Amino acid sequence: VPPSNSDPDQALDELREALESPSPERIKTLAAGLSAARLADLLESLEPGQRGTIWSALDAGMQGRVLIEAHREVREQLIDASSPAQLAAAVQNLDLDQLSDIDDALPADVVDAVLRSMDSQRRERFELIRGYDDDTAGGLMDADAIAVRPDITLAMVLGYLALVRAERGRLPEELDAVEVVDRGGHYLGRLPLTDLVSLGVGQKVHDVMATTLAPIDATLPAARVARWFEDHNLVSAPVIDADGVLVGRIKVDNVLDYVRAEADRAALAAAGLDEGADTFAPALRSARSRGVWLGINLVNALLAAAVIGLFDATIERLVALAILMPVVSSMGGGAGTQSLALMIRGLALEQVNRANQWRLLRRELTIALINGVVWSMVVGALAQLWFGKPGLSLVFGAAILINLVAGVAMGTLIPLLLEKLRVDAAIAGQVVLVAFTDTFGFFVFLGMAALTIR
Amino acid sequence: VPPSNSDPDQALDELREALESPSPERIKTLAAGLSAARLADLLESLEPGQRGTIWSALDAGMQGRVLIEAHREVREQLIDASSPAQLAAAVQNLDLDQLSDIDDALPADVVDAVLRSMDSQRRERFELIRGYDDDTAGGLMDADAIAVRPDITLAMVLGYLALVRAERGRLPEELDAVEVVDRGGHYLGRLPLTDLVSLGVGQKVHDVMATTLAPIDATLPAARVARWFEDHNLVSAPVIDADGVLVGRIKVDNVLDYVRAEADRAALAAAGLDEGADTFAPALRSARSRGVWLGINLVNALLAAAVIGLFDATIERLVALAILMPVVSSMGGGAGTQSLALMIRGLALEQVNRANQWRLLRRELTIALINGVVWSMVVGALAQLWFGKPGLSLVFGAAILINLVAGVAMGTLIPLLLEKLRVDAAIAGQVVLVAFTDTFGFFVFLGMAALTIR
Repeated sequence: VPPSNSDPDQALDELREALESPSPERIKTLAAGLSAARLADLLESLEPGQRGTIWSALDAGMQGRVLIEAHREVREQLIDASSPAQLAAAVQNLDLDQLSDIDDALPADVVDAVLRSMDSQRRERFELIRGYDDDTAGGLMDADAIAVRPDITLAMVLGYLALVRAERGRLPEELDAVEVVDRGGHYLGRLPLTDLVSLGVGQKVHDVMATTLAPIDATLPAARVARWFEDHNLVSAPVIDADGVLVGRIKVDNVLDYVRAEADRAALAAAGLDEGADTFAPALRSARSRGVWLGINLVNALLAAAVIGLFDATIERLVALAILMPVVSSMGGGAGTQSLALMIRGLALEQVNRANQWRLLRRELTIALINGVVWSMVVGALAQLWFGKPGLSLVFGAAILINLVAGVAMGTLIPLLLEKLRVDAAIAGQVVLVAFTDTFGFFVFLGMAALTIR
Repeated sequence: VPPSNSDPDQALDELREALESPSPERIKTLAAGLSAARLADLLESLEPGQRGTIWSALDAGMQGRVLIEAHREVREQLIDASSPAQLAAAVQNLDLDQLSDIDDALPADVVDAVLRSMDSQRRERFELIRGYDDDTAGGLMDADAIAVRPDITLAMVLGYLALVRAERGRLPEELDAVEVVDRGGHYLGRLPLTDLVSLGVGQKVHDVMATTLAPIDATLPAARVARWFEDHNLVSAPVIDADGVLVGRIKVDNVLDYVRAEADRAALAAAGLDEGADTFAPALRSARSRGVWLGINLVNALLAAAVIGLFDATIERLVALAILMPVVSSMGGGAGTQSLALMIRGLALEQVNRANQWRLLRRELTIALINGVVWSMVVGALAQLWFGKPGLSLVFGAAILINLVAGVAMGTLIPLLLEKLRVDAAIAGQVVLVAFTDTFGFFVFLGMAALTIR
């Protein structure tokens, strides 16, 4: 059965049924129709106890690919449940960049066994990739580039490719070009397969090779590698070291996985969640990591409570203050959140820099002033209708205006500040912003009320 | 100068300098070193008034590609600033899927002129693509597939590719395979270029073509197309209509753009922002769209205020209630946000379904109970130290526990509910959740206090 792209729910249902009466044969057949990524998703969505049944029905190569695709906690669980020999068989044929992504999670003796089973060339390449940070071009690359010399003919390149295929059984995945290097291994250009299949085979490589795009430096941050692929619609790209020597090749599927993982990570991290967490893990394990984030949340809330506590006598005199104060914090937080989201995107796109950040701040403050004036008049009028106290209505409207403008200023400045501190604004920005708009909003509102309302 | 992937800030700085003394030649040279995507980002980051100078220095083909890459509002501004003839020249050589993405934004006479300038085959293909929804496989595909019959030899395929190249000057981008169709145009399989360059050219296409992966149905939702590409590490994939006839080809760069755009859209939409908005647009224009979202925010806040207002007499008797109440709403909102984020990802990965959603809810509630019990004891003890009123401390701790569990229940159920209503939980989920945890939290805390504290 070829995998179908139309109904993943059906695949899950069928697997679930197969689990009712565990027949390894039936599970094997069903699993063969699924990609490693879908199998990893499906495994995670089962009770942890049921995962082993499917896991052990997979062949070694698929087990390795599922380990790569699974979220960190699920991967760790699968590793714990497997014997060293089983694990070594599962990971030994992985792409080297993928192996380097998970080698830290594997038992040391498994990594040793896998290293020993490699030929010296493969081991050398693996050590090279492992030397680069996971979040750089070097960490994203694989060592599967095919390189030729510039002074040969296209016919010779075709002969070489046929040879490589005959030897290995297949050519590397997503091979859209052959890299061209000199005797010292220095990158010179690349020969797209579309040229190989459409140009005269008598031509020399150096006459037709493409040199318009720069190769990628192995230390380039992964985020910039992703932009580079997006900007130039690349399928793969050569990676060079500091000496210009070709060290590997990045493939678009790894870039796509990176973009998806970063988006997931940002969405979860904003709620204090770990992207690697197992959504279906036992509750007790998850409770601890979530509890920590709730503790931070609590500290913020207590800070706001302490500010309110400064003005207990004022609230006692005028209880309407307690009724209206959540509106002040909420409007400041809401407006600030908008500026924060825009700044985070602007920084990610590298659109915001020293030259225009003050212009942006001015723009955001102008927007805040316009909305602040409009909405503070609306809420002031509402407060007047509700409580009929002009002094209170004025203070309320003014507090909304001030907290809205302050919230926007902080929403714009916090990402710039966090970037300087090398903290990811997508993770910490919202927490810091709300801590500010809550405490500052309460302080301004209740403080002005204490000074003016008798 | 080949584009460099190392320092985009430098490119912006140089362009900015060039703008000081507008020399079209210098601007042209600098722009030639940049991709359309980077140019679009840079254009957006300039004052709207400065954009025209660079825009008019670009050649027509680059203008067309920049229009595709720019955010919607920036694109509209550039279109407004250009003459119909200029626009027609800019867009006439775009890929058809890209043209169909922006044709609604172009003046009708420009679209007419471009359609008239097409040969009948290209026009037919364009109408076909335009007929599909942008968010489906049909909307993502281009009409640039190269198709051959199954009964020819690889040598004949190579000859055909050389012919296509000689005619058009180049082969389609990201061409990793030739599609195989029968006489009626029905999709049969595909012939990877890696096979073309490494197998004997005397072989017949039908003996070596790949048939393991199903083609993509033109009506498949774009989100599922993206998962399909990610799962199978595809560079391009054939698209068929309901009759199995090959109608186009989806390329991975469009998938990558889609994944990135969706991630951006979700991050901005959660703050009520439009992904197409121009970050650097004049403040007045932006103020209006943001103001609407603040208005929704205000309604929520006023709802919470109204709930507090129900208990003004109680607060008057015990002002500590006003001090502590933001803690109750904050803890419920924080815990609920975590469940919400996990559910949104689980639904996106299609891991959550009828079979396991109740198990997930039970798991989330268990986590909430554990954290609720722990943190309510902590906050209760703190309240006791602060105010020394056992009744208040008990009510406070109980309210935290109840609101935390209720927030988690809502955080888990809201995405399931919104999915049934076909509303995107990434956009509306947080707003609905916070409206609940604020009003419910205040009601439970103040209500219990009103009943028990004399």
